[in-house]
Amino acid sequence: MLKTRLLPAASNAYQYPLLVKSLLLSGARYEKSREIVYRDLVRYNYATFNERVARLANVLTEAGVQAGDTVAVMDWDSHRYLEAMFAIPMIGAVLHTINIRLSPEQILYTMNHAEDRFVLVNSEFVPLYQGIAGQLTTVQKTLLLTDGADKSCALPDCIGEYETLMAAASPRYAFPDFDENSVATTFYTTGTTGNPKGVYFTHRQLVLHTLAMASTIASLDSIRLMGNSDVYMPITPMFHVHAWGTPYVATMLGIKQVYPGRYDPELLVELWRREKVTFSHCVPTILQMVMNAKAAQGLDFNGWKIIIGGSALTRSLYEAAQARGIQLTAAYGMSETCPLISCAYLNEELKAGSEDERTTYRIKAGVPVPLVDAAIMDEHGQLLPADGESQGELVLRSPWLTQGYFREPQKGEELWAGGWMHTGDVATLDGMGFIDIRDRIKDVIKTGGEWLSSLELEDLISRHPAVREVAVVGVPDPQWGERPFALLVLFEGQQLDAKGLKEHLKPFVEQGHINKWAIPSQIAVVTEVPKTSVGKLDKKRIRVDIARWQESGSEFLSAL
Amino acid sequence: MLKTRLLPAASNAYQYPLLVKSLLLSGARYEKSREIVYRDLVRYNYATFNERVARLANVLTEAGVQAGDTVAVMDWDSHRYLEAMFAIPMIGAVLHTINIRLSPEQILYTMNHAEDRFVLVNSEFVPLYQGIAGQLTTVQKTLLLTDGADKSCALPDCIGEYETLMAAASPRYAFPDFDENSVATTFYTTGTTGNPKGVYFTHRQLVLHTLAMASTIASLDSIRLMGNSDVYMPITPMFHVHAWGTPYVATMLGIKQVYPGRYDPELLVELWRREKVTFSHCVPTILQMVMNAKAAQGLDFNGWKIIIGGSALTRSLYEAAQARGIQLTAAYGMSETCPLISCAYLNEELKAGSEDERTTYRIKAGVPVPLVDAAIMDEHGQLLPADGESQGELVLRSPWLTQGYFREPQKGEELWAGGWMHTGDVATLDGMGFIDIRDRIKDVIKTGGEWLSSLELEDLISRHPAVREVAVVGVPDPQWGERPFALLVLFEGQQLDAKGLKEHLKPFVEQGHINKWAIPSQIAVVTEVPKTSVGKLDKKRIRVDIARWQESGSEFLSAL
Repeated sequence: MLKTRLLPAASNAYQYPLLVKSLLLSGARYEKSREIVYRDLVRYNYATFNERVARLANVLTEAGVQAGDTVAVMDWDSHRYLEAMFAIPMIGAVLHTINIRLSPEQILYTMNHAEDRFVLVNSEFVPLYQGIAGQLTTVQKTLLLTDGADKSCALPDCIGEYETLMAAASPRYAFPDFDENSVATTFYTTGTTGNPKGVYFTHRQLVLHTLAMASTIASLDSIRLMGNSDVYMPITPMFHVHAWGTPYVATMLGIKQVYPGRYDPELLVELWRREKVTFSHCVPTILQMVMNAKAAQGLDFNGWKIIIGGSALTRSLYEAAQARGIQLTAAYGMSETCPLISCAYLNEELKAGSEDERTTYRIKAGVPVPLVDAAIMDEHGQLLPADGESQGELVLRSPWLTQGYFREPQKGEELWAGGWMHTGDVATLDGMGFIDIRDRIKDVIKTGGEWLSSLELEDLISRHPAVREVAVVGVPDPQWGERPFALLVLFEGQQLDAKGLKEHLKPFVEQGHINKWAIPSQIAVVTEVPKTSVGKLDKKRIRVDIARWQESGSEFLSAL
Repeated sequence: MLKTRLLPAASNAYQYPLLVKSLLLSGARYEKSREIVYRDLVRYNYATFNERVARLANVLTEAGVQAGDTVAVMDWDSHRYLEAMFAIPMIGAVLHTINIRLSPEQILYTMNHAEDRFVLVNSEFVPLYQGIAGQLTTVQKTLLLTDGADKSCALPDCIGEYETLMAAASPRYAFPDFDENSVATTFYTTGTTGNPKGVYFTHRQLVLHTLAMASTIASLDSIRLMGNSDVYMPITPMFHVHAWGTPYVATMLGIKQVYPGRYDPELLVELWRREKVTFSHCVPTILQMVMNAKAAQGLDFNGWKIIIGGSALTRSLYEAAQARGIQLTAAYGMSETCPLISCAYLNEELKAGSEDERTTYRIKAGVPVPLVDAAIMDEHGQLLPADGESQGELVLRSPWLTQGYFREPQKGEELWAGGWMHTGDVATLDGMGFIDIRDRIKDVIKTGGEWLSSLELEDLISRHPAVREVAVVGVPDPQWGERPFALLVLFEGQQLDAKGLKEHLKPFVEQGHINKWAIPSQIAVVTEVPKTSVGKLDKKRIRVDIARWQESGSEFLSAL
């Protein structure tokens, strides 16, 4: 380490730790009359919000929650969740956002693994909770969250109902200072193999992520994604990477926030219209559902700015959204990265390009946001050139990456092999800094001695007018090693078989975009593509389904 | 300290320090074709800028500069200064930005006190440097900065001329990681009593300040002060609080930057016009000079967004600027605060007010930016209520405040008495969070048993149509303790005496804004008001001048 001039130790007394509570200074304190809205059920202003954060801190403290304890939440996206995102870390406890789309067995596993001491449970999940309660090893007390009139709690060890307790609690709390490297939040990634793994983020990390995200989305490009006058509604769940960290940004800026509970597309459209939402974030499949909602038919979404992430953004979806008035901005991140890593916006050179070229860049993963180092690494741990050609694993450095997996030191070391965080994504990095994700390492199809990106093939197939959704996976093939297999959902009344798809892909082979092995020899037309709990294509399950169909024969299949 | 769950020590290996070099990731790397401009002399793009930062690091390293050394710069605002703001901290050294408006004796004092090892000197300051060189105790080497054709260096221990050395140096440098609490910059405040005091800022502080400032100025209000497409030109000097930290923000966002050298108003207007500047920051007196410049006559400054700080913004200047198309945003800070503390923007309630009410808030010091705690403290160290009425000293907490004064532990302890940083400003804080600076503690006029704000009186006097500039100070008075004395500069061809001023102020007495003791019994009309090296009213010198005039009698004086 260099011998720089360090601060004198005595002056450390005046160091100011980066704590989640500091995000409540500024906007959230100043814009007192701005609203926080939960469906058509709750509406209050930031003055009330600040008081409610203090009330919740008092409820938890009086119930015996101590600094260092883990407090779990099982809820749909709500004002209550937002309150928990502040109050729980602010008393020095750890917020565990339970992934409610996991199976009961997986939820049980994560709760025991995270050592949850205290759980806030939405009334809709009471039966689920009752089913696993007997096997929970660390939970001491529970608390009921409900939208209904019935406030009686059927949970074991229940201290009462949220609103009843909140009403009785003091609206003042002297939130303490503590070490900024204290863990603030944890949640479990939905790995495709093995048990879910717990990632965790500290106060320092959340504050830095919030500042960098605010700097980025407020300043980039010709549009301002989120400024002081915007209205924010998340459409990625709060249990998943804190709704991409955006509620922290919205609160720091003091802007109106709208929480939709469950992601019913009709309700989302209705809330967008009624609350004049201008800024959201979601995954491609949900955006598709929103645009296809009955309430959305004939509607002009002009002025809606949406960050798209979670899966690759296809050109066809980008253009479809644009035609409906929605301005999409692609972004990249994952559970391990808090999550924001990069954002697709155009620099001076790209702005001067044709609309087609501009779109090509607008649907990539984007350029790293401030304080993010990105590089491409080969399988021997060597960094590859940023030439737009060299493919390798995308690796990262940044102040807000998970420092490991909770109680899984071995997996943590693999994640950080060589001092870089390994994303598991195959990517290229070009001279401008643009990250282009080619595929998940495990989803790359090895065919005819070459690597074929399943994402690239999905993009080309999605351009066929009959195709509504597509998933491509590699299936074992004795001759080629693997061959691509395409699972399709078609628009109503449309038809497509393997031969039709081949015709569609031929021009791309002729133009050199893909080679001829990339044409799927077998496809299946289904009514729905399996998704993970966070709405991504579930390629693990798709492979299992295909293997079963291929064994047993199936009406879904169409071969060349 | 609470027992929170801390990160396991092993995982600290993956901590990512907050270093100035990380500000060069993102915008500065991505917007390669954006320009950095120095007057009409130099123009290059960010690709070149990144290389030049590495070249300068190599020049310094080859000259023997080591981590922990202090490297001083004596230059006007230039691209070279910007390069130094990055390269010097990035090699682990400390950048001392020398206040070139101080007297040679004061410059000598600060250079010896800061223990400068290496000095970059603009050719214009070579005679000054030669005059003090014999008394410099720590300097080992010098380097010449010049805009001229003559590259020969007349400085003692000179290693050569900047561009010549840069051209020969490698454009690559592996900038190291080190502790984020390493000091990155230092400079001296122009105290009104005693020797200048050295404040210092760490890498962590500069990075956090940059992120918070970017978040604020990009997101606040209905206007975006600085977004990706803006063009930035500083009009407060780079030696003074790093030009308010804004070059770091501009570089992180990758926007075009224009450096004007000396602050000649005609040149500033010409650069504004030619380079299409949209964003600047300056003190009120300089703005007045720019608007009064010959080149500005009849010019519509529409689209120019300017942050005003350093001194109070008067209503008349705000309105005059608005009439010329300039959108002013008041901000507050000082040398000790890096500097941004607060920014005046309107929340929902204020936006609904009349134009007059809106202006009342737009000219205040504003609301604290994210991560800043502000409070009002009485002389016994007790915090006072934020009621808009209680006056006391404004005290602060934030991650980017100087942790003391270099080699002045006693003064540092006074600065941080009670764990808050003392600003020396008398202020009120209202229920919305708005800071209203009433005066410097030492400039408050104690008259007739009450405190009179010299700033408030200056504001009222400045509304007289004949008054171009005004400074009010308290002068000793046997009967009243102190009485206000007004120093005036009038517009050409205008006249005003003490009686005329009394007539102007009478209505404010009748409306209860001020009491009758506030009316100056004596004024002086002068051609220029003394200013400090950073363009603020020099009330210390004004008091000396007045005392001299009062002793000797003077044609300037006019009494009631």
